[in-house]
Amino acid sequence: MSGHPSTAIAERLRLLPQSGPNTDMGRLLRLFWHPVATSQSVSPGAARPLRVMGEDLTLYRGESGRAYIVAGQCAHRLTQLHTGWVQGDEIRCIYHGWKYAGTGQCTEAPAEGAASAARIKIVAYPVHEYSGLVFTYMGPGAPPEFDLPRKEAFEKRGLIVMARIQIWPCNWFQMIENSLDAVHVSFVHLAGKVGPFGEAVTAAIPKLEYSETDSGIRQTATRSQSNVRISDWAFPNNNHILTPGRTKDAAWVHRGVWNVPVDDTHTYKVGVYAIQSQGPEQDRITLEHFQKYGDYNPADHHDELFIEKKWPEDASLQLTPAQDYVAMMGQGAMVDRMQERLGKSDAGIMLLRKIFWREMEALRNGCPTKQWRRPQQTEDVPLQTKPVTASV
Amino acid sequence: MSGHPSTAIAERLRLLPQSGPNTDMGRLLRLFWHPVATSQSVSPGAARPLRVMGEDLTLYRGESGRAYIVAGQCAHRLTQLHTGWVQGDEIRCIYHGWKYAGTGQCTEAPAEGAASAARIKIVAYPVHEYSGLVFTYMGPGAPPEFDLPRKEAFEKRGLIVMARIQIWPCNWFQMIENSLDAVHVSFVHLAGKVGPFGEAVTAAIPKLEYSETDSGIRQTATRSQSNVRISDWAFPNNNHILTPGRTKDAAWVHRGVWNVPVDDTHTYKVGVYAIQSQGPEQDRITLEHFQKYGDYNPADHHDELFIEKKWPEDASLQLTPAQDYVAMMGQGAMVDRMQERLGKSDAGIMLLRKIFWREMEALRNGCPTKQWRRPQQTEDVPLQTKPVTASV
Amino acid sequence: MSGHPSTAIAERLRLLPQSGPNTDMGRLLRLFWHPVATSQSVSPGAARPLRVMGEDLTLYRGESGRAYIVAGQCAHRLTQLHTGWVQGDEIRCIYHGWKYAGTGQCTEAPAEGAASAARIKIVAYPVHEYSGLVFTYMGPGAPPEFDLPRKEAFEKRGLIVMARIQIWPCNWFQMIENSLDAVHVSFVHLAGKVGPFGEAVTAAIPKLEYSETDSGIRQTATRSQSNVRISDWAFPNNNHILTPGRTKDAAWVHRGVWNVPVDDTHTYKVGVYAIQSQGPEQDRITLEHFQKYGDYNPADHHDELFIEKKWPEDASLQLTPAQDYVAMMGQGAMVDRMQERLGKSDAGIMLLRKIFWREMEALRNGCPTKQWRRPQQTEDVPLQTKPVTASV
Repeated sequence: MSGHPSTAIAERLRLLPQSGPNTDMGRLLRLFWHPVATSQSVSPGAARPLRVMGEDLTLYRGESGRAYIVAGQCAHRLTQLHTGWVQGDEIRCIYHGWKYAGTGQCTEAPAEGAASAARIKIVAYPVHEYSGLVFTYMGPGAPPEFDLPRKEAFEKRGLIVMARIQIWPCNWFQMIENSLDAVHVSFVHLAGKVGPFGEAVTAAIPKLEYSETDSGIRQTATRSQSNVRISDWAFPNNNHILTPGRTKDAAWVHRGVWNVPVDDTHTYKVGVYAIQSQGPEQDRITLEHFQKYGDYNPADHHDELFIEKKWPEDASLQLTPAQDYVAMMGQGAMVDRMQERLGKSDAGIMLLRKIFWREMEALRNGCPTKQWRRPQQTEDVPLQTKPVTASV
Repeated sequence: MSGHPSTAIAERLRLLPQSGPNTDMGRLLRLFWHPVATSQSVSPGAARPLRVMGEDLTLYRGESGRAYIVAGQCAHRLTQLHTGWVQGDEIRCIYHGWKYAGTGQCTEAPAEGAASAARIKIVAYPVHEYSGLVFTYMGPGAPPEFDLPRKEAFEKRGLIVMARIQIWPCNWFQMIENSLDAVHVSFVHLAGKVGPFGEAVTAAIPKLEYSETDSGIRQTATRSQSNVRISDWAFPNNNHILTPGRTKDAAWVHRGVWNVPVDDTHTYKVGVYAIQSQGPEQDRITLEHFQKYGDYNPADHHDELFIEKKWPEDASLQLTPAQDYVAMMGQGAMVDRMQERLGKSDAGIMLLRKIFWREMEALRNGCPTKQWRRPQQTEDVPLQTKPVTASV
Repeated sequence: MSGHPSTAIAERLRLLPQSGPNTDMGRLLRLFWHPVATSQSVSPGAARPLRVMGEDLTLYRGESGRAYIVAGQCAHRLTQLHTGWVQGDEIRCIYHGWKYAGTGQCTEAPAEGAASAARIKIVAYPVHEYSGLVFTYMGPGAPPEFDLPRKEAFEKRGLIVMARIQIWPCNWFQMIENSLDAVHVSFVHLAGKVGPFGEAVTAAIPKLEYSETDSGIRQTATRSQSNVRISDWAFPNNNHILTPGRTKDAAWVHRGVWNVPVDDTHTYKVGVYAIQSQGPEQDRITLEHFQKYGDYNPADHHDELFIEKKWPEDASLQLTPAQDYVAMMGQGAMVDRMQERLGKSDAGIMLLRKIFWREMEALRNGCPTKQWRRPQQTEDVPLQTKPVTASV
């Protein structure tokens, strides 16, 4: 590094938004399970391309129903594998018919013979499906137990669980920072309400507390004694928040939000919505609402939002992400942190960066990184009960 | 520089098309007022993004009706300011509500407090509105008096004054060069008339004279004793020409044309049209004509013009700029001047470059640059009489 | 170069996909005639832009009907010449009217005079039209006799000859390699027939033989004693294959396929289809079929093919190229040959590369390159009989 402080700071800031396999941050992120697709985006017998942390991959679902993630390209002449055929639980390349198991092992190279095939193996990553999402582990060695990403709030009896994924054309870390920034709610999510908003907004600034926990960072935003909002952010890229239901009487919605790098300038914004059942008729309406508005992606409406300044119709599934999109995309595809002016209200962001720098340094030095653990269950509920699920 | 002549020439040519804040040309251009938007493109209480000479800016109009130009991004976490709210004559960021006056002074940072806000100031540039256009001065120190850009032809009693701006995806300097190149008229603006055109065109080559004046370059194109065309080009990027009116009986139209760099490969083509009133009925038709055809931008019809070779319908507001667009865009986004073969008919271009090189060198050496002055008024007319205006 | 074998291999592989004027491969390719446009794409009196092997050119057809290829830009101020006017058999620039003959000689520079014009000459390449295609020779010195590209199969009496050109956004050399790769037929061209396909495909792997001939490489794919497929590939970028006709009774179709670099990441896929006449009624249907489906370009349907996985309707003119497109574009815009794993079934590709490396080395060392010759005629047929032609 350098003796000049601003160079050292620039160097440290430069580490944060990376995600590629040969970067400090990329190595750290690869020690965790990440959601990379909705389960319904790949039917049995189908395959699709996938890009995660700068790596091109193939997601396919075997005829058995099991999902697999292997390299994006055939080892032979590098054609994209998803354009080929799923046969049984294996996938065959369209170009010369080389066939691969979900382990990445080549099981057939028709014009070459069995001995050749046996010597060929492509990248493959373990897959775990949960809450309507396909998770994968892209790190070295055996994957950790699939425990940290779980939420008891998604596993209760009688839930409707819905999942969706959008790709935003900006860096993942500025999206993470937004999760640890409770002040933004007082402004960003008032957009579209300019009239009654006026000068009043400044009254609503919360008192903020951030503390590191076993699973990540607990954020407490106190606006008044009766208005305390707690959210638990789990390392490295998941937030768990509660938002009002679709109707006044409805229970609040548990939302899991992950920000997973597609590459350094694109991010999967992954959302799980877990809603307590309100009876078949209400549930049907809830599901229809999700079908109708859930596949909205603000990135498809960039000019509408930035130039025409037209907000979308639906408040919960469209407006809120659209507002966040304007705030975060407005920082540019990758914000230049050397220009920023952080203040005391950015304490969550500063704690967040400090933890990432500490973990990257441990990893770089071969020291143990922190063993993040899912929070102890606070309610006596059965886990892994099969919920009703829907995905977009 | 270098002893090798072609390297020295390359180095000098390289200076011409630049516009960024840290370039010789960028520093020179910043000593002048430039039109960067039409007045009607920003209503009271509205804000829009603006890019000028490679700098991202925010143009907003306070509730008082006054227009301001400040930095493109909030100082805090760098979100684009135009997505926020205009309140009074100030603008508030959407992300965390930091508020700025038109001077760039931060007047509120809700979650930080007044002392913090007082220490924050963003870039702001003076604004002057004239002839339906928003002008700004982006140089150091106090702006020069707003005098050089004025034309008495735009300030006479009883005028209709109309303004429009197009963005062309090519460099500003090749557009400037076109202004000092009277020969092109004999060819470019005959396109679409191939039939009767034939070999005849070559007869119409004018005798050309160019001389430096107090305000820029005077260009005289003599085609015959009864056909002498004079145009006054004002340093650094404005041309003043006269073109026939919409009808045979109508007075000729005074046109001010500015070419202002958006960045090095995009240019604002700014046009003011000042037309002597011909009575309410004729004026209504003139304004309707401008409304109907004035927002044409040839850049939106690139393939039509270059591949399908279809010219637009309206001669004055569409065809002429379309023809110029084909000639100038045809040189590429930034013409490679090392490949060109100038001749004696390029005397205007050579004089133009010589003046720019002289002025850049003066500025580089800390010598005084020429004090360009608006031409003495030749007619006894009141100035700044409010004309009827329309903009696109 | 380097002593490290993988560096030396990387260096050799890097030579293959190039095409620019200052590359080994570009110099080699420029020793041959290449088809670069369909004849019907430029009518008498018309001009169009053309990009070949990284050079921007102008293709125009004089009023006499003769086609010419000259530089893309005027020598004067570098505006694209195709936007000007064809006059007689010359072309005049739109900007200042400089006029050029098909030899590249400037014949008029209206505002400069005859002496100036005489000193100006732009690039011009010889043109030869054949089988509905415009061929050009872009090498040094006089062009070779137009003989190697000819096929007696295109010159027989009573033929319908149809030509079309598509631009694919990938490198030309991976398209050439596909021609020397008979195995791909067993897989790529079975796509869309997944059902009955199943595991059976692997049975159909042909025995392959490749041998260098006077004109290129002869490829023999033996699937059974009664199923032997021979195709003659001619150096440097032409393949001659036979495919079934539109109906069962029809004679097989002779197809000439050229892959000509537009630049390093775009390729002209040029096709000539020569079909024995089957009487006026059948021929009319054949021509209508070509008009209806022949202008399909899979590149215009990229997402349909790669994401939605929908194949086009017509088998011969749409599906086959679409399948090849998926296989070759799936390798990326320029395949990374350092990652590939060639096997014994890639013998054709290995022979192909060896020949190119040998020829490039000869050229680099100033040694004679191989004098490729059109194969001796095997049938007693008249040559150059004017066939019925159609182009897209």
